[in-house]
Amino acid sequence: MTKEPIEFFFDFISPYGWFAAERIGALARCRGRTVAWRPILLGVTVRQAMGLPPLLETPLKGPYLIHDAARSARLYGLPWRPPSPMIFSSVAAARAIIWANVRGNIDVEALALALYRRAWAEGQDIATPDAVADVAASISLDGTQVRAALESPGVKDGLRTTVASAIERGVFGSPFIIADGEPFWGSDRLDMVERWLDGGW
Amino acid sequence: MTKEPIEFFFDFISPYGWFAAERIGALARCRGRTVAWRPILLGVTVRQAMGLPPLLETPLKGPYLIHDAARSARLYGLPWRPPSPMIFSSVAAARAIIWANVRGNIDVEALALALYRRAWAEGQDIATPDAVADVAASISLDGTQVRAALESPGVKDGLRTTVASAIERGVFGSPFIIADGEPFWGSDRLDMVERWLDGGW
Repeated sequence: MTKEPIEFFFDFISPYGWFAAERIGALARCRGRTVAWRPILLGVTVRQAMGLPPLLETPLKGPYLIHDAARSARLYGLPWRPPSPMIFSSVAAARAIIWANVRGNIDVEALALALYRRAWAEGQDIATPDAVADVAASISLDGTQVRAALESPGVKDGLRTTVASAIERGVFGSPFIIADGEPFWGSDRLDMVERWLDGGW
Repeated sequence: MTKEPIEFFFDFISPYGWFAAERIGALARCRGRTVAWRPILLGVTVRQAMGLPPLLETPLKGPYLIHDAARSARLYGLPWRPPSPMIFSSVAAARAIIWANVRGNIDVEALALALYRRAWAEGQDIATPDAVADVAASISLDGTQVRAALESPGVKDGLRTTVASAIERGVFGSPFIIADGEPFWGSDRLDMVERWLDGGW
């Protein structure tokens, strides 16, 4: 059996991405795997690649998702204090993950969870580069270095490439997991991912 | 605790509706509940109420769903032989359920499962009134009576009302379950429905 990284695609504007982010690390470690953290931008995917309106603005589905996200947080035992407004730019936060991936020797999972929690468990802004640098500093990364990296052409380009490549590979939601080539969409599919990794069915 | 029926909204064109239909009866019976079988028409809901294109024609998501439905059938231990084309009119089959609900003394679950299986486990047509009457006859209902009912103004109107009322109550997908007033979307949420019925969280 191969031991390739589990590819975890997520957008910081997606609370379902957060719910899965809280579990994917342990799920991988239990199986001797690592996680490749791949930030995407649903705005690009949903609007441009799929031609759909933003999820929260979709009639019937939008109100359901807001209700379901709060309920799901309770089920998962996570604090729930969403940012206001719930739709914000996740570009800076996504760039921080790109930077961390390239930089190396960084606990990307810790950074991703710190950003997610700041937004969805504390209801704080993570849309600005300063806010993202502040979150990075809160987990002992060099805030000044992170702040500078968010404006770096290499990092900006890295995010564009990551988003485009995800779309090319069929990724259309958050979270989206590719495990040994098999695609899984949704935080409620982690059990299925586990079964797949443990031998399929 | 109330013992209201579990409302199960579904469209015969949705294999996920089938996967949940195979489980919802037992889930309800275990808890001393009944199931109210409420056929909907995703064409009306998705296109008219939500303003979205058909799911299977949505870029990225369409191909994923076709792959996922086959994989999910295997996981659930169900035979998988989808009809060709996979998109067909489910109006006649939906009307048969409306008729069965109004007629009374009919095992609606058996009729719904027979229709679902004819389409998705046997790959046969259930789009025409004749095909629907044939399925009904296969479970010892009066095929001639069913065939006539499919053209009855009362049944037609009953379906229209059911679809409109579902939309008004926020139903936007198949399966969609309302249990004690709480809405749940998706065949992968039955565990959540069980937890909710068993006391919430």
